[in-house]
Order: sequence, then C-alpha cells, then structure tokens
Amino acid sequence: MKKNKFWSQAVRQLTPYIPGEQPISSNLIKLNTNENPYAPSPKVREAIISELDEKLRLYPDPDAFSLKNIIASKLNIQADQIFVGNGSDEVLAHIFYAFFKQSSPIFFPDVTYSFYKVYCSLHEIPFKQIPLADDLSINTEQYKKPNGGIIFPNPNAPTGRLLSPKIIEDLLRSNKNSVLVIDEAYIDFGGISSVPLISSYPNLLITQSFSKSRSLAGLRVGFAVGDGSLIEALDSVKNSFNSYPLDRLAIIGAMAAFGDTKYFNVTRKKIIKSREKLSLDLLDLGFTVLPSVGNFLFITHKKYDGADLTLFLRENNILIRHFDKPRIRNYLRITIGLPEQNEHLVNTIKKFTL
Amino acid sequence: MKKNKFWSQAVRQLTPYIPGEQPISSNLIKLNTNENPYAPSPKVREAIISELDEKLRLYPDPDAFSLKNIIASKLNIQADQIFVGNGSDEVLAHIFYAFFKQSSPIFFPDVTYSFYKVYCSLHEIPFKQIPLADDLSINTEQYKKPNGGIIFPNPNAPTGRLLSPKIIEDLLRSNKNSVLVIDEAYIDFGGISSVPLISSYPNLLITQSFSKSRSLAGLRVGFAVGDGSLIEALDSVKNSFNSYPLDRLAIIGAMAAFGDTKYFNVTRKKIIKSREKLSLDLLDLGFTVLPSVGNFLFITHKKYDGADLTLFLRENNILIRHFDKPRIRNYLRITIGLPEQNEHLVNTIKKFTL
Repeated sequence: MKKNKFWSQAVRQLTPYIPGEQPISSNLIKLNTNENPYAPSPKVREAIISELDEKLRLYPDPDAFSLKNIIASKLNIQADQIFVGNGSDEVLAHIFYAFFKQSSPIFFPDVTYSFYKVYCSLHEIPFKQIPLADDLSINTEQYKKPNGGIIFPNPNAPTGRLLSPKIIEDLLRSNKNSVLVIDEAYIDFGGISSVPLISSYPNLLITQSFSKSRSLAGLRVGFAVGDGSLIEALDSVKNSFNSYPLDRLAIIGAMAAFGDTKYFNVTRKKIIKSREKLSLDLLDLGFTVLPSVGNFLFITHKKYDGADLTLFLRENNILIRHFDKPRIRNYLRITIGLPEQNEHLVNTIKKFTL
Repeated sequence: MKKNKFWSQAVRQLTPYIPGEQPISSNLIKLNTNENPYAPSPKVREAIISELDEKLRLYPDPDAFSLKNIIASKLNIQADQIFVGNGSDEVLAHIFYAFFKQSSPIFFPDVTYSFYKVYCSLHEIPFKQIPLADDLSINTEQYKKPNGGIIFPNPNAPTGRLLSPKIIEDLLRSNKNSVLVIDEAYIDFGGISSVPLISSYPNLLITQSFSKSRSLAGLRVGFAVGDGSLIEALDSVKNSFNSYPLDRLAIIGAMAAFGDTKYFNVTRKKIIKSREKLSLDLLDLGFTVLPSVGNFLFITHKKYDGADLTLFLRENNILIRHFDKPRIRNYLRITIGLPEQNEHLVNTIKKFTL
C-alpha cells in the first residue's frame, strides 16, 4: 500500500475484505463464491431488454418503489418495511452505520462472514466475536448479554448451520435494546426465514440477496426488511451516500427474478438435491461434512490438509474456498455446482486421496 | 422521521441530500436534473444485450478492469490512475472518507453541489464554505489558506461558471498539503479538463460522470482519476464497503458509451449549440443568464420571483430546479433539453411574463 500524507487516519486503519477470486478465464469450475450454478430466470433477460431504450439517459427511481412492491407482495409485508441496495453488502454497510455505530460492542460469531469485521473498521464500531460451539454451531445463549447490536447469518456462513425461528424469537425476547440483524443470504436453500417475525419485533432486521437463490450475483441487488423506523434510518444513510444505488436495469431485472417464483423453486430444489448427493459422496470419501442448508458445504478431513487440497483442485481447474483462519484452517467451503461439476469435483478429490 | 432508540447517534444527525424530482409520469418535460436529452449511444444497447446470458449469475469483476482500460486509453492515462463507482456520488462519498476525514475543515463554495455538505455530515468532517464572488464565480485566492482538503465542481453547479486549468494549476502550486478534488461532472459541455495535471500533482483528484455527457444517468457509473496512491486509498474504502459496486451491465454499457467518441462529440455539440440558443432567447426576455459551460443555465430576472415561475412551469408540465437557499433564491437552474423542448420552455415563460 502506497500510503501517504493525503490518506485520512480512517483509511489508514482499514483492512479491506478480500472477495473470492473472480477469474476472467472461463475454463475453470467455479465453486468458490457461492454463485448459483443455474442462469437467472429467462424473464430477467426479457425484462432488461424492454428497459434498454432512451430512458437509460434518465436517473432511476431513487426508491426503486416498483421493486419494493414486488418483494412486499411476495413476502406478504409492506413496501415501507423494505430497503434495497447495491448488493446486500451495501445494505449491510448502511446497517452498521445506522444501528451499530455506538459505544457498546456489537456481537457476531468468531467464524462467520468476514465482512462484518471490516464494516466495524470502516465505521469505527467496537465488536466482540462470540465463539461458535465445538460443533461450529451458534449458541444464542451467549448473545444474551448487554450489547450494541447482534448480527449473524442464518444459515451461518461458511458453516451452513441453521437456527430455527423459535431460537431466534427466544433471543429477540431477551434482546430488546439493540438491533438484531439476521443475514439470510442463504435462507432459500432449505432454511425457514424469520421475515414473519418483523411485525412483532421492532428491532429485528433481516437481509436477503439476489446473488444466490435468484442467480443474479452479476446484477448487484440485495435488500433488508424490518420495522418502518429501521427502514427510515437506512434511507437516511442511503440519501447521505448515494441517492440512486440501483440502476434501471438492476431494478427491472430484480423485479423479473423475484416475480418468477416457479423458476426460483425449480432451481433451488435442484441445488438442494445436488447438495445432498454431494454431501453423501464426500462422506463416502471420509470427509466430515457439516449439516448445511446453504448452497455450499463446509467440509474437513482428518487425513488431508485443507490448503493442499485447495491447491490440488486449483491445479485441476476447480476453484473452492479455503479460509486461512483460526479454527477453520483445515476446512473447505465448496459451492454446490451443476450435477456434472459436483461429480467432476468428487472424481478429482479421489485422485488427490489416492 | 420516526427516530427511535435503535438509531445510532450518527444517523440521527444526518440531513440527507434531496435529489430533483424523478416523476413516474412521462408527459412532463424534465429539465430539472441535468440529464442528457439524447439517448445513449446505440452501441450501449448492443453491448448490454451481448452480456445478457448466463454470466449474470456470476459476480462482476470487482475492479471493472475492462472499463478502466477504455477510460485509460481515451484519457491517455494508466488504468491504475482510475477508480470507478456506482455513480460519481458514490465515488465522492468514498473520496470524502479517504482524504477529508481529518480534523482541519475542508473548503468548498457556499453555492455549489449540495451533496458535499451531506458527505461531511455522513463522515463527521468539519468544513468551511467559501463565498462565491458577487458575480457567483469561484475566487481561488480565497482557498489559499491551511485546509483539510478542497472540493468544487468545474464548471461549478448550479452556476455553470468555469475555471481555467491555469487557475487550477496556480491553486495546486500553493496547496501541496491536502487533496484538491475537481468535480468535472459537466466538463464535457465546453470546459477544458484538468485531467492532464494529475501526473504532475499527486494531490489532485478529478471526478467525472457517465450521467451527463454520456447519457447514462440510468446506469449509475462515475469515476475518479488521480495519482496511484490516491486510487489505492479509494480501493481500500471500496473494499471495506462493497467489493462489487458496478454490476455487469453497468460495466459493459459504460464501456460502449465511453468507446463511442463520435456519438459523444455529436451529442455534446448539439447540447452546446442548444444552450447558446436558449441563452439568447432568455436574454431577450430580460433574464440575467450566467455564462454556463454546463448542460444547464442558471438564470434570474429582476421582475419575477424564482419560486413563482418554477410553480407556473410545473403547472404547465415543465420541471426545472429552484433551490430555496441563500443568495440563489431568485435563480433557476434549467437543464438544456431538445431544441423543441427549449423552444416550448421559452414560449411558456413568455406566457408567464405577459
């Protein structure tokens, strides 16, 4: 880093998030960033083409109201309970500013989405990492202490482990003074969403993403749902940062994707089926496979080194994700691919274990 | 605002930017947000359609390197001297964090883009507004004092007044200890860009937008150019906020627009010609018209009230921008429309003045 005197103190102290590799070459099997192996609904293409006219010269609707309406009707909530942004990463960044920029530390798991720590650094928020249990599950009892806020993904990433809405409601009942954020990026692959709880708990905020179950990582759309007052705070941050976070094509493409429930159900069920198959195949090879309800598996093997296997797969044109971090150094996170890609993965791992 | 205990101190203190009205109805003549009256280059549509395949399921290139390459070749600079973002608003937000989040106040004009003050509030940056001269021009002599940074648009908005690169270089020579940001959102309508100065001044940062001269307000793309060290700081903020600010369609659409120099020149010249015509017509009606090199005019009339005229035009389905602010309360900012729209505007104003 070529830091110099022009850098603010704040920017000097940042340790940015490092996303998974996005290779330009396309002869790699990409199982490293939890993208959906299926293309988006064909209706997305149609919708975007219909928007490709002279209107591109005009600013988009700053509130993306038409998109909020579709989300509202599908989730059975109100449009003013929804905030949309340029990927759930942007939504989360604004959430940290709006609710977590306080003097008490916020809580999140020691093993979780590593961007949370980065947002804390960006917004100068104190935090405390709560260790996962030995089986890498979240023990919500440990979060029942005074805090400046709580955030975790459900299912957690990269573990894939799920908490039930009952456990979450129990936590909400004992945590009335700070915002609880449930990051549901992966909820559509077999979890039960906590969205119905937002009408009862004014401090519950739930984020979801179009990048996973809607196959639209390339379009950058995410959203949060919660009580109207929380949404107003987020609007206030958005309108102090960038009034028009979603472009016209992202808005209309996301509308088409969210509207196509049939396609959504077909593709996510295929992924769930593939996950169960891949899980069994890896168990057969002696791996420990955490029970995942995400579109990925988190696995480890007593005999093989995680970094070595990752490297071997890379040499065989398969990208997976290895986190060089405490507690999970020997684990691998593998995105569920197409059935033939998963099969090829298993066969390649077999070569490594021979 | 339904502020409650869950709002952070920071979000309570925000006074968000209010963008110009974006009406859903299309029977309005929209001369209020400085959009381009011409559609984007036809190559934009072609390019975006070519990207509408299964790749939408994959994250975009987080560095938008292919877009940076085109900008670099057209501006005769290096790709690592470029930062791109979701509209120049996002780029500016990161700039304020990276360079202006310091204890010394930053300087900007009292009459200028009103988002600057909002970014200061967002990032808790002290600022000092330097009054424009009586003719509403920027007097750079007043900026030659110790400061935490300087920012102004060139040409300034909403005045349209331009500073020459010579004046800017003179300011740079006496301002070596903080970053000078020139917001060139409107430079392509007759101004001379300061981009060639970036190789000589490591504290110069210039922002430009695709929303005005490239007719792509609906796609949300902006960029900054400057010394590699400044760009690194911006990358650090971006990667602590949202790794993928530009979606796949925005990247490829912006590439096509920036690549089509011929279309760019034809449309901007048409707008310049229309501006000169509209300027003369308004002078004929007794208006004072500031000498503008933007795609807008800033006008006032001794006999008529700015707010009244804005309302009258609104009733006649013409939107223009009136800022209810000190010094410019009686001014109107009018975006240059198509020749027939400008003519209709003049005829409608005539009805008001009868």
